[in-house]
Amino acid sequence: MLTKWMHTLIDNLVKSGVRDFVISPGSRSTPLAIAAFLHPSSRTHVLVDERSASFFALGLTRAEDWLRPVALICTSGTAATNYYSAITEANIFELPLIVLTADRPHELRGVGAPQAIDQVALYGKQVRHAFDLPLPEATALPYVRHVAERSVLLALTEPAGPVHINIPLREPLIPELDLLQTGHPVGRPIRHVTGHATAELVEILSIPRLLIVIGPQLSSADTQIILEYADRSRIPVLADPLSQGRQFSNDTVFAYYDTWLKETTIQYHVCPDHILRFGAMPTSKPYLLWSKEIPTTVVGHAGNWRDPQLQAHFLSGHPSQLKTIPCTEHDITYLEALQRAENTVETVFDSLDSGQLTEYNVVRALEGLTEGSLFVSNSMPIRDLDTFLPTGTPLRILANRGANGIDGILSSALGATYEAKNRYLLVGDLAFIHDINGLMMARTVPMTILLINNTGGGIFSFLPQHELDPDLFEPLFGTAQDLDFSHLAAGYGIAYQHISSIGELKVALQKNTMTTRILEIRTDRPENVRLHRLIWEQTNQALQEQFR
Amino acid sequence: MLTKWMHTLIDNLVKSGVRDFVISPGSRSTPLAIAAFLHPSSRTHVLVDERSASFFALGLTRAEDWLRPVALICTSGTAATNYYSAITEANIFELPLIVLTADRPHELRGVGAPQAIDQVALYGKQVRHAFDLPLPEATALPYVRHVAERSVLLALTEPAGPVHINIPLREPLIPELDLLQTGHPVGRPIRHVTGHATAELVEILSIPRLLIVIGPQLSSADTQIILEYADRSRIPVLADPLSQGRQFSNDTVFAYYDTWLKETTIQYHVCPDHILRFGAMPTSKPYLLWSKEIPTTVVGHAGNWRDPQLQAHFLSGHPSQLKTIPCTEHDITYLEALQRAENTVETVFDSLDSGQLTEYNVVRALEGLTEGSLFVSNSMPIRDLDTFLPTGTPLRILANRGANGIDGILSSALGATYEAKNRYLLVGDLAFIHDINGLMMARTVPMTILLINNTGGGIFSFLPQHELDPDLFEPLFGTAQDLDFSHLAAGYGIAYQHISSIGELKVALQKNTMTTRILEIRTDRPENVRLHRLIWEQTNQALQEQFR
Repeated sequence: MLTKWMHTLIDNLVKSGVRDFVISPGSRSTPLAIAAFLHPSSRTHVLVDERSASFFALGLTRAEDWLRPVALICTSGTAATNYYSAITEANIFELPLIVLTADRPHELRGVGAPQAIDQVALYGKQVRHAFDLPLPEATALPYVRHVAERSVLLALTEPAGPVHINIPLREPLIPELDLLQTGHPVGRPIRHVTGHATAELVEILSIPRLLIVIGPQLSSADTQIILEYADRSRIPVLADPLSQGRQFSNDTVFAYYDTWLKETTIQYHVCPDHILRFGAMPTSKPYLLWSKEIPTTVVGHAGNWRDPQLQAHFLSGHPSQLKTIPCTEHDITYLEALQRAENTVETVFDSLDSGQLTEYNVVRALEGLTEGSLFVSNSMPIRDLDTFLPTGTPLRILANRGANGIDGILSSALGATYEAKNRYLLVGDLAFIHDINGLMMARTVPMTILLINNTGGGIFSFLPQHELDPDLFEPLFGTAQDLDFSHLAAGYGIAYQHISSIGELKVALQKNTMTTRILEIRTDRPENVRLHRLIWEQTNQALQEQFR
Repeated sequence: MLTKWMHTLIDNLVKSGVRDFVISPGSRSTPLAIAAFLHPSSRTHVLVDERSASFFALGLTRAEDWLRPVALICTSGTAATNYYSAITEANIFELPLIVLTADRPHELRGVGAPQAIDQVALYGKQVRHAFDLPLPEATALPYVRHVAERSVLLALTEPAGPVHINIPLREPLIPELDLLQTGHPVGRPIRHVTGHATAELVEILSIPRLLIVIGPQLSSADTQIILEYADRSRIPVLADPLSQGRQFSNDTVFAYYDTWLKETTIQYHVCPDHILRFGAMPTSKPYLLWSKEIPTTVVGHAGNWRDPQLQAHFLSGHPSQLKTIPCTEHDITYLEALQRAENTVETVFDSLDSGQLTEYNVVRALEGLTEGSLFVSNSMPIRDLDTFLPTGTPLRILANRGANGIDGILSSALGATYEAKNRYLLVGDLAFIHDINGLMMARTVPMTILLINNTGGGIFSFLPQHELDPDLFEPLFGTAQDLDFSHLAAGYGIAYQHISSIGELKVALQKNTMTTRILEIRTDRPENVRLHRLIWEQTNQALQEQFR
């Protein structure tokens, strides 16, 4: 019965669209791991640190432009608790993780048996649904099929998200191998989208001074629909780097708003009558502050109404509706005002010293890349990228922007860029060390890691914490770690290169290596703050002159 | 109000017995971290990986022979989810963790604000209680004091365990520093033990062929009470290494039962009429199988009734009761039978080649240590220690035996041995890499790490999984990682030594260094299995001859 039970579960997951199984070895999970490994249509990945494994699976769910369900397999006990961070991110960022946890049989729960914790509903409110299977027996086989199919359906239905299947098993744990080597091909995962209403959308689209904003969490396909509509209707679009909108370079797409919205005197000139937002709230803090008072409509689904300003009107809908809506005319002077702001910032950025090894120039060096996926860590890297990455950069840009954690970054990157021709990661030293065990997976998934090492939490240098006395700031916020990344790389068998000039970085990026390498770029925290401030001063001055 | 709020919380935790605060830096948790750091009676520890930080705190709760409450501090978002594994262990192993999670204010929850996850009751059934504070305001100040004191009380009341306090905070987050530099001295944590009944215990103690078993989770003080009583009454005691009973060498204390209970023909000779167990189920699997049919009484408290065999009678009580119970006479021939078995195994063990670098000899080398605490990892190390560690070894032995995970081992060890004169860790390569970030804390807490590197999950070589085809076994269970630990050590700035002979190990152990060092001992998985089998054959043969 064990073999049939396992085969029914795994084969129906595959049939429903699960191809990838990310496995962390253990004893109780033996039959699950073997069944996933032997299934003719599956792809398995093994990583001993369950936390890194779960973030790798999280990344894999969006290795392509659409979402696909990915399964995690671990043994009973605390192993399963290591998944909690990735599950929480999957919950908020709406990623279809199917979490399979092996469990001890009921009679060994809570009675002091080893590796037995209370796994029923272990992930609380962070999952869409939690199933707890009975012990293997013939009567319940149809239920196993039901749970497998339903888990994938629940994980993909808007809002997509994680689903937990807890699987108690008795010894012996070795299944018969023959039966497990047959099975269905991988099914086509279907995203279940809730109903739409368009009348209100048509009305908003006719507002003459309209601004469209595209945030994270959009597919490239959806973004393209929005950008084409906006371009034909001459509606300006602010494109967050995670919207994929900066891959395009229409004159209606804008990238430098994080900078021009910092300048208070021009905020009025670029103010629309209405904002129409697709996707999540953009990364830019100046945008967040500026748009607070502007009437805004967010198009999405109610399951994940993202509006931290608590002022937006919500519209249940989807970018695909734009295909059926005719174009309308818009106030061309409004578009031109934004273009003027954009060009002003661009001129200043282009005039900056391009030879220094600054965080600004590191981002600009990425412009030279012509194909691939770039994963960006939270904290400073995503902010720098948002500020400096121009339109027309042909990279798929990804990040964990559900809970914005600095955990699991490397593993998430390896998963999310898995199907890309070239893989890049931009990460700070703290986030990198937090998920250092992701390097075990990096040995089989070649990636270029741009490691910005400013020895600690650089972001606090931009926050009010910085004004604290150094005796208080350094231990609690500076968090200098004094790590030697060349040794750490060697420890995991990963190539390492210290980058000492921007020229060296550009040369290194041109090389296409077939193995993972760490390019360490050391920067200085106070110097970085000084340079950022200097750039703001210059752009502010140029904008003031332009809009005087 | 922020300052007063924080001070009330932290000062009342200190007053109730919390001295140690383990902090992972973040923005939202700024006032918590500062208040803990500035409190005149506190001791703070900073570790950026929250998972390692939580296991370090877990360890600190039992750095002394009694339990003391330890507080964790982290920022909002996925940071808090990284604590889940240590909290689960604390739940089962009954350790008083006080988990302080900073949270976003209510209006920023679930609306797409960064680093905002649903933290209310985040740890589900794994905590004794979860408090969710209101936002700081004067009316609720008495409630903050109440929550602080009550958390410590709940964490220490049997069964002791983790308590969660979720703390929403609005910006600005910098408190006034002056007020925070005053406060109470650290209070004396009081363990709250539930009532006892002794009549039944007296009756059991009068059974002539009685065996006492002492398992993990006893304090040295309690163990000493049991051993003294047993010695006076000539009752044999099987002492799990985690009971601290093997620090003693009375002729009524036994250490080698894991070996002599493997031999079926003598199982009858050593069979008592009744087993009286204090503490959790011992580590030994032969004991578990053998004792299944023997009437057993477990003395403890109902909150954590540890009886995976589902046969024991449960008695609410405590070792201290033995102080008031008079000694009784026992069947001396029963004690002698056990002594015969013990001596037989001892003779074989003493005759084994002591020059080889085997896992057996590594454990025997620990006998040379005269003072300190030894933390033992799960999976193989605890089993080897259980089998081979003799009585009269004056080390305090510690392990995570609640959920028996291989996560957080290094950090737990640093915490649990914190107050010891000398600190030792016995760990395999998989568990070590899982918590590699614990090395950041190891820079300030000197420890000798005995790293047994058999390149992967050695334990599976002893389990039925080993019979699988190598094509299936190696990727799923062998999990060879090919890590270079000398480089990893250098990456974290930790000293490293490769140990190539048992003599070299003994010399290294004699050196008392003031910094952490890794002693890597490479062993071979198949050779290790062969040697274990060989030892069992020899002991079985000797026992058969002795008991023929």
